[in-house]
Amino acid sequence: MTRKREFDRRVKEQASQPPGTPMFIGKRKMEEVRISYMRYNENLYEEKDNSTPEECAELCNSDEVVWINVEGIHDESIVEKLGKLFSIHALTIEDIVNTLQRPKFEDFSSYIYIVLKMLDYSQTDVAMTPEQVSVILGRNFVITFQERPGDAFDPVRERIRNGRGRIRKAGSDYLAYSLMDSVVDSYFLILESIGDQIEDMEDRVILEPEPETISDIHRFKRAMLFMRRTVWPLREEIVLLEKSESELVDESTSVFLRNLYDHTIQVIDTVETYRDVISGMHDMYLSSVSNRMNEVMKVLTIIATIFIPLTFIAGVYGMNFHFMPELKWPLGYFATLGIMLVVALFMVLYFKRKRWI
Amino acid sequence: MTRKREFDRRVKEQASQPPGTPMFIGKRKMEEVRISYMRYNENLYEEKDNSTPEECAELCNSDEVVWINVEGIHDESIVEKLGKLFSIHALTIEDIVNTLQRPKFEDFSSYIYIVLKMLDYSQTDVAMTPEQVSVILGRNFVITFQERPGDAFDPVRERIRNGRGRIRKAGSDYLAYSLMDSVVDSYFLILESIGDQIEDMEDRVILEPEPETISDIHRFKRAMLFMRRTVWPLREEIVLLEKSESELVDESTSVFLRNLYDHTIQVIDTVETYRDVISGMHDMYLSSVSNRMNEVMKVLTIIATIFIPLTFIAGVYGMNFHFMPELKWPLGYFATLGIMLVVALFMVLYFKRKRWI
Amino acid sequence: MTRKREFDRRVKEQASQPPGTPMFIGKRKMEEVRISYMRYNENLYEEKDNSTPEECAELCNSDEVVWINVEGIHDESIVEKLGKLFSIHALTIEDIVNTLQRPKFEDFSSYIYIVLKMLDYSQTDVAMTPEQVSVILGRNFVITFQERPGDAFDPVRERIRNGRGRIRKAGSDYLAYSLMDSVVDSYFLILESIGDQIEDMEDRVILEPEPETISDIHRFKRAMLFMRRTVWPLREEIVLLEKSESELVDESTSVFLRNLYDHTIQVIDTVETYRDVISGMHDMYLSSVSNRMNEVMKVLTIIATIFIPLTFIAGVYGMNFHFMPELKWPLGYFATLGIMLVVALFMVLYFKRKRWI
Amino acid sequence: MTRKREFDRRVKEQASQPPGTPMFIGKRKMEEVRISYMRYNENLYEEKDNSTPEECAELCNSDEVVWINVEGIHDESIVEKLGKLFSIHALTIEDIVNTLQRPKFEDFSSYIYIVLKMLDYSQTDVAMTPEQVSVILGRNFVITFQERPGDAFDPVRERIRNGRGRIRKAGSDYLAYSLMDSVVDSYFLILESIGDQIEDMEDRVILEPEPETISDIHRFKRAMLFMRRTVWPLREEIVLLEKSESELVDESTSVFLRNLYDHTIQVIDTVETYRDVISGMHDMYLSSVSNRMNEVMKVLTIIATIFIPLTFIAGVYGMNFHFMPELKWPLGYFATLGIMLVVALFMVLYFKRKRWI
Amino acid sequence: MTRKREFDRRVKEQASQPPGTPMFIGKRKMEEVRISYMRYNENLYEEKDNSTPEECAELCNSDEVVWINVEGIHDESIVEKLGKLFSIHALTIEDIVNTLQRPKFEDFSSYIYIVLKMLDYSQTDVAMTPEQVSVILGRNFVITFQERPGDAFDPVRERIRNGRGRIRKAGSDYLAYSLMDSVVDSYFLILESIGDQIEDMEDRVILEPEPETISDIHRFKRAMLFMRRTVWPLREEIVLLEKSESELVDESTSVFLRNLYDHTIQVIDTVETYRDVISGMHDMYLSSVSNRMNEVMKVLTIIATIFIPLTFIAGVYGMNFHFMPELKWPLGYFATLGIMLVVALFMVLYFKRKRWI
Repeated sequence: MTRKREFDRRVKEQASQPPGTPMFIGKRKMEEVRISYMRYNENLYEEKDNSTPEECAELCNSDEVVWINVEGIHDESIVEKLGKLFSIHALTIEDIVNTLQRPKFEDFSSYIYIVLKMLDYSQTDVAMTPEQVSVILGRNFVITFQERPGDAFDPVRERIRNGRGRIRKAGSDYLAYSLMDSVVDSYFLILESIGDQIEDMEDRVILEPEPETISDIHRFKRAMLFMRRTVWPLREEIVLLEKSESELVDESTSVFLRNLYDHTIQVIDTVETYRDVISGMHDMYLSSVSNRMNEVMKVLTIIATIFIPLTFIAGVYGMNFHFMPELKWPLGYFATLGIMLVVALFMVLYFKRKRWI
Repeated sequence: MTRKREFDRRVKEQASQPPGTPMFIGKRKMEEVRISYMRYNENLYEEKDNSTPEECAELCNSDEVVWINVEGIHDESIVEKLGKLFSIHALTIEDIVNTLQRPKFEDFSSYIYIVLKMLDYSQTDVAMTPEQVSVILGRNFVITFQERPGDAFDPVRERIRNGRGRIRKAGSDYLAYSLMDSVVDSYFLILESIGDQIEDMEDRVILEPEPETISDIHRFKRAMLFMRRTVWPLREEIVLLEKSESELVDESTSVFLRNLYDHTIQVIDTVETYRDVISGMHDMYLSSVSNRMNEVMKVLTIIATIFIPLTFIAGVYGMNFHFMPELKWPLGYFATLGIMLVVALFMVLYFKRKRWI
Repeated sequence: MTRKREFDRRVKEQASQPPGTPMFIGKRKMEEVRISYMRYNENLYEEKDNSTPEECAELCNSDEVVWINVEGIHDESIVEKLGKLFSIHALTIEDIVNTLQRPKFEDFSSYIYIVLKMLDYSQTDVAMTPEQVSVILGRNFVITFQERPGDAFDPVRERIRNGRGRIRKAGSDYLAYSLMDSVVDSYFLILESIGDQIEDMEDRVILEPEPETISDIHRFKRAMLFMRRTVWPLREEIVLLEKSESELVDESTSVFLRNLYDHTIQVIDTVETYRDVISGMHDMYLSSVSNRMNEVMKVLTIIATIFIPLTFIAGVYGMNFHFMPELKWPLGYFATLGIMLVVALFMVLYFKRKRWI
Repeated sequence: MTRKREFDRRVKEQASQPPGTPMFIGKRKMEEVRISYMRYNENLYEEKDNSTPEECAELCNSDEVVWINVEGIHDESIVEKLGKLFSIHALTIEDIVNTLQRPKFEDFSSYIYIVLKMLDYSQTDVAMTPEQVSVILGRNFVITFQERPGDAFDPVRERIRNGRGRIRKAGSDYLAYSLMDSVVDSYFLILESIGDQIEDMEDRVILEPEPETISDIHRFKRAMLFMRRTVWPLREEIVLLEKSESELVDESTSVFLRNLYDHTIQVIDTVETYRDVISGMHDMYLSSVSNRMNEVMKVLTIIATIFIPLTFIAGVYGMNFHFMPELKWPLGYFATLGIMLVVALFMVLYFKRKRWI
Repeated sequence: MTRKREFDRRVKEQASQPPGTPMFIGKRKMEEVRISYMRYNENLYEEKDNSTPEECAELCNSDEVVWINVEGIHDESIVEKLGKLFSIHALTIEDIVNTLQRPKFEDFSSYIYIVLKMLDYSQTDVAMTPEQVSVILGRNFVITFQERPGDAFDPVRERIRNGRGRIRKAGSDYLAYSLMDSVVDSYFLILESIGDQIEDMEDRVILEPEPETISDIHRFKRAMLFMRRTVWPLREEIVLLEKSESELVDESTSVFLRNLYDHTIQVIDTVETYRDVISGMHDMYLSSVSNRMNEVMKVLTIIATIFIPLTFIAGVYGMNFHFMPELKWPLGYFATLGIMLVVALFMVLYFKRKRWI
C-alpha cells in the first residue's frame, strides 16, 4: 500500500482538470520515453528501436502490420502527440497515462482500446506490483504503452522475428491477441511460484506457528485478492472482444480468443483454489496456536495441581501445635513422605486415565 | 448515527401527509436559501449570485445553457415555486427536500431527475456526512439543489468561467455529466485520505492492539459500508443515463458517461479492497490480542510452575517431625538449596526444549 | 415464536381440507367482525361504520370509488359471503383468512389481490407482530381485510374526508396505492424507533457487556430479519403492480408506484444498514467480554506471580535444618525482608516494561 | 447417514448397467408390492385394493379419471410391466426404482413425470427420512409409486370418496395437483413440530448449555438443510408444470398451481427463518458456554488470589530467624491476624469496585 | 499439491511457444502410447488393440461407428498425426496434451471437443488425482484420449461387445453420451466411499478430537472443493451439448443427456451435502476441543482452590509467634484439622450447588 502515497498530489490536481486532460497519475518507473516499432507481413520484417511518433504514423499508411511499442508514459506530451497522429479520443489519452485504470475494453469503431495489467510478483514480500499496459488496436497497427521496459512481450517479438506460428500471416488483431495471451501466460508463471510458496508454508503452519505466520497468510490472501481483481475484468474484456462486431477483429481470430478465455478461466480457478487453501491455512494456524497454548497450560497446570496437596500436607506438619502425636512417631516423617508419594501417584494415574496427560 | 435523532418529528409528520406534499426532512445546514445562476454558450458567459426563481425561469427562454444552483433546501416554498415555474412533478419536489433519498435516476421525459450524494469525510471521527444534491436536467438548463454552500462544484464553475475544455461548447447534458464527474472525483479524494489512515492503523494493530483499536476498525468498516451504499446506486444511475433514449442526452456525451462509469467502478473496486484490508485487520487484531494474552499467561504460569515444586521442598523441611535425619546433617541446608537449584534448572531446560520459553 | 403454538390445531385441520376451503388460520385478535365503507368521488363523500356485505355490493354498481374495510377475518362465513358477492376466486378467499401468507400480488383480471403485512413493533421485547392486510382492487372498489381495528390507514381516511391531495380525484388504483404507501410509511416509523434503541445499546455493549446483552443483540437481529422478509416481497409486489398491464391500474398511477418502490428500497437499505450495525455490535460484544476477562485474569495472575517467589523465600527460612547460618545473623530477618522487597519490585518493573500492567 | 450404507452394493452394480436398465436402489421398506386403483368422474366412483397391471391398463381406455397407486417399488419387474403397458420411457422406469432421485419434472409429451419426496420426521432423533413418490400424469390417469404404504394421500382419497371439493369434477391434472398439495401440506406439519422443538431448545441453550446441546443444534441444522434441498427443486418443478404448454395440464388448474407455488415459498421461508434461529442458537450456545467457564475461572481465581498474600504473610512469620522482634510481641499474633483480615477485605473491596465479583 | 511441482519446467517452456503448439503439460503416467479401436453397428462388431493413426483414419470412411481410444498423451507427435488425419484444429491438439484443462465443450462444427476429468480417489490420503479425458465426437467416430490405461470405460466396452442396451443401434453421439455417463457413474462410487469415511470420522470428532482430526477435516474439505470444481463445469458442458444445434447430436439422444444432467445435479447435491456435513464437523471439533480443555482446567482449578485456604490455615499455625494461645490447647491440632475438613466440604458443596463439578 505504500506505493499509493506517491499519487496524492497528482490525483488532487487531476480532480480539478476538465475530463479528457491527459495527466500522468502513477509512479515514474524509468527516465526517457522510448518508442520502437516492428513492421511485418508474411514476407517482410523490419524493426527499429528509437523512433518518433511522426515516423510511426507514416509507417501505417502502407499495408503491413505495424506494432508500435511505447515504453514510459509519464511524458504526457509524447502520448498526446501519438494520440493526435492516430486520431485517438482525448479520454483514451487520459486513460493511457492514468495507471489506476482497471482492465477494460472500449470499442471506438476506428480503433479498439484495451487496458491490460501485467503483474510483477516479488516472492520475498509476497507483493504484487501492477504495470499498466494499454493496447490500441487499429486497422493495420497495434500501439502498446508500457510503464517501463519489460520482457513479457519478448516471446511475441521473437516469434515475429523468426516467423514461427501464424503471427506473420495474420493481421493486427492476431497480434493484439498474442499480446494478451502472453500476459495471461505470465499469470500462470506467477501462480506457479505462489503455489510453491503456499506448499512450503503449509508445513510451517502446522509445525511452527508463529505470529509472523499470520501476517504471511494475510499477505498471501491479499495477493490472491489482488490477482482476482485483475483477472476478473480481463475475462470480461476477452468476451467483449470476441463478441464485438468490430470489423477490426477477424472471425478467424475468435477461436483463439475463446482459447484465451479458457486460459483466463483456468487462472481464476487456480486463484480460487489458492484462496480456499489459504483460508484453510488460516483456520489451521488458529487451531494450531490454540493447541500449543492448551498443551502448555495443561502440562503446567497439572504439575501445579500435583504439588498443591503435597505442599498442604507439608504445611500441616509444619504447624507448631504442642500436641501433635504424629510428630513424635519415629517413622512419622517417612510415613508422611510415603503418603505424599501415594497422593502424587494417584493423581498422575487419575490424569492418565482421564487422558489428560 | 446521532444525526438521525433530529429527523424523528419530521418523518412522523411526513407520514401523515398525502404523497407529493413537499416537506423538508433532514437537518438544516444553513440559514438563508441562496439562488445563483450561470448562463453561457461558446461565446457568452454571465453569472449572478443572488437571483430569484422568476428571474431564472425567464433566462431559460433563450438558447444558452443555464445552470441554476440552489443552496439550502429547508425552505419548501422556494423549491415549490421553482418547481412550478419549470413544471416539475410534485413527487420530484417532495424528493428534493427529503434528504433521505438514495442516489436515483428518473426520466420524466421533459426533464431528468438525478439524486447525487456528496460525502463529507471527517478524519478524526472516521465519519461520513452525506449531503444530498438534486440535479434537474432540462433541455437547456440544469438546476442543482444543495443542502449547503459547498466547493465540490467549484472546478466546474472555474472551467465555465475560463472556457477551458469542452464545457462551453457542449449542452446542458455535458454540464450535468461534469457535475456528476466532480462528485466522483471527490470520492477519490476521500478514498485517498482513508487509504492513508488505514495504512497507519495497520501498524498499530500489530504493535499495540488496544480495545479502542477494535472500535476504530468498526468505524472504518462502517464508513466503507456507507460509501459502498452510496456509490452502488450511482453506478446504476450512470448506466440508466447512458442507456436512456431521452432526447435530453446527446449521443456525443455517452463516451464521457462510459468514462465516468469506469471511474465509478474504480471507486467501488477501491472500496472493496479497503473492506478486505479492514476485515483482514480485524482478524489480525484478534490474533494479536490473543497472542499477547497467551504470552502473558505463559510467562507467568511458567514462573509459578518453577517455584511450586521448590516451595514444596521447603515445606517438607519445615515440618516439625522429631525424627528427620536430614535436618541434622551439617550440609543438609546447602544440599537442599542445591537440589532446589537443580530442579529449577531442569524445569527451565525442559520448557526451553519444548520451546515454551 | 410463542405465538405460533396457537396455530397447531388449525393447520392440521386445514391440511385435510380440499384446496379453496376457507379456514381461518391465526390468532383471533378481536370479537366481532365489523364492516365499514367509504364512498367518494371528487364532489361526493359518504361513510358508514356498520354495514353488511350486501349493502356494500350494491354500492359498487354506481361509479364512485368505494372502499370497504373489513376488520376481523376469523369469521370465514362473512368473508365468503363478500367473496361471492364480488365474485372472488375461492383460493383468494382461502388466502384472506390464512394469516400465514407472505406479501404477494395476484392478478385475477377482474380484480387484483394484494397481501400486505403491517408490523406492530414492541420496544420492550424487541418483537414484531405482523398483521395481515388483504387488499382487493376492483374496477371502482377496494376491499381491505384487517385482522383487527388499526389506525395505520387513518391518514388515508382523513385525506378522503378532507379531500386533500389527489385522492378524491383519482380512481380505486390510487386508493390502493395510498394504502400501500401508508403501510410503507409505518415501516419508517418502526425503523426510527429501532434506530434509537440500537444507538442506546451501542454504548451498553462497550461499557457494560452482560450476558443479557447478547440475547438483546439476537432479538434485534431477528427483528431485522423479520422485517427484511416482510419488505423484500413487498418490493417485488410493487414492481409487479407497476408492470402489470391490468386495465385496473391507470398509467398516471405508475409514477406514484415508482416513488413507492423507491421508498421500499430505502426501507430495505436501512434494514441492511441496521443488520450490519448489529452484527458489528455482536463482534464488539465478544471482544469486549473477552477483553474484560483478560483484564481480570491478567491482574490476578500478576498478583499471584509476584507472591509465589516471595512465599518460596519465606519457605526456605522456615526450614528446620540445624545448620542454617543465615538464621543466626542479627540482621538476617530484615535482610530477607529487603530481598523480598527487591524481588517484588523487580517483577513489577519487568511487568511494567513488558506493558502487561 | 447410516441409511446410506445399505445402498453400496446396488449403486456399484447399477454403474455397470446400460442406461435405462431398471434396478432398485434403496432400502426395501415393505414385503409385497400392492397395486390399487380408484376410478371416478363426477357421477361414478369405484375403488379396488388388489389389482394387477393389466387390469389397470384396461381401465384407462374409458374416459373416467383413473388413479393407480403402487406401494412398493423394489420389484423392478412389476414396475417394468406397468411401464410397458402405459408406454413409459425406459429412463423413467429407471428413475422410478432409483430412490436417490431429486424432485424433478419431465415432460414426455404423452405423459408428465414428477418426482416428489415425502418426508418422515422423527422428533426423537431429529432425523428426516425421505420417501420417494413418483407421479405419472397421463391423459386420463395418474400413476403413483410409493416406497411403502403411507397415509399422506388419505385426505385426497377421502375427498374422492365423498366427492367433496372440485376433485371429482376435474381431470387427472387436478388429481396430480392435489397429490402435490398434500405433500406440501405434510411439510407444514413437519415444520410445526420442528418449530415447537426449536422453541423448547432455545431455553435450554441459555439455561443449561451442555455438550449434547451442540450436537442437537447440528442435527436441527442438518434437518433444515435436508428440507431445504427437498423443497427448492419442488418449487422449480411447480413452475415448470405451470409454465409447461403440455396439453395434459388444463388452464383452469394453473391458478391452483400458483397457489401451491405460494405455499412452497412459504415452506422455504419458514425453513430459512428456522435456519437463522438455529444459527443464532449456535452463537448463543457458544457465548453461554464461554460465559459459564469465565464465571468458574473468575470466582476460583479470585479465591486463590485473596489467599496467596495471606499465605505469604503466614510464611514470613513461620521463618526461623533467631532475631525476629515481632515474634516476641505479646499481641504479634493477633496483630498479624488483623493485618491478614485487612488485606483480605481490601482485596475483596478492590474486586468489588472493579465489578469483578 | 506436490504433484504440481513436476509441471514447472513445462509451463515455462509452453509460455514461450506460439499458441497452437502442442506441448505435453502434466505428469507422464505410462510408457508407450497405445491406440486401440472398436468398430460396430447393429450387426457388425470388430475390435483391435494395437492400431496406428493411419489405420484408424481409414476405418472412418465406412458407415459404422468407430471408437478410437488413445492411451497416453505425452507423445505430442502421435496426437498431432491423429489431429491432421481427422482435420482437428491446432488449438484442440494443444488442449488435448495439456492436462491442466477444465472440463469444457467446444463445437467446431465438423467435430465436437469435450474435456472430461476422471477422478482417482485414494481413501488413505483423502486425495483426488484427476485424469484428463478428451473426447472428439465426429460424424461417425469418437476419439478418446486418456492419460493412462484405465477401466472406467470398461462397462461401455462390455456393452458394445455384448450388444446389450441401445448402444449398438445408436450413433456416435450415443457413444459419447455413454462415455460421459460412465464418468459420472464413477463420481457416484467416489462419493459413496467418501460418505463412509465421513460417517466414521463423525464419531471420532466427538469422542477423541486430536490435532490430526483437524487436518483430516481440511483434507475432506479440499477433496470436496476439488470435486465441486470438476463437476460444475461438467454440468454446463452437458447443457451446452444438449442445447447445441450441431447435426452431430441426434435429437433422440437428448432425453439421455437430460437424464445425465439430472445425475450430475445429484452429484453436485451430494457434494454440497458433504460440504455442509464437513463444515459442521469442523464446528463440532472446535467445540469438542474447547470442551475438553475446559473440563481439564475446571477440575484442576477446583482442586487447587480447595487446598489454597487449607494451606493458608496450616501456614497460620506454622508461625513462630511466642504467644499463640491455640498452640497450647490440647485439642488445638485436631480442632484445626476439623476446621480444614469443614472448609473443604463447604467448598465442595458450594461448587456442587453451582453445578461446577
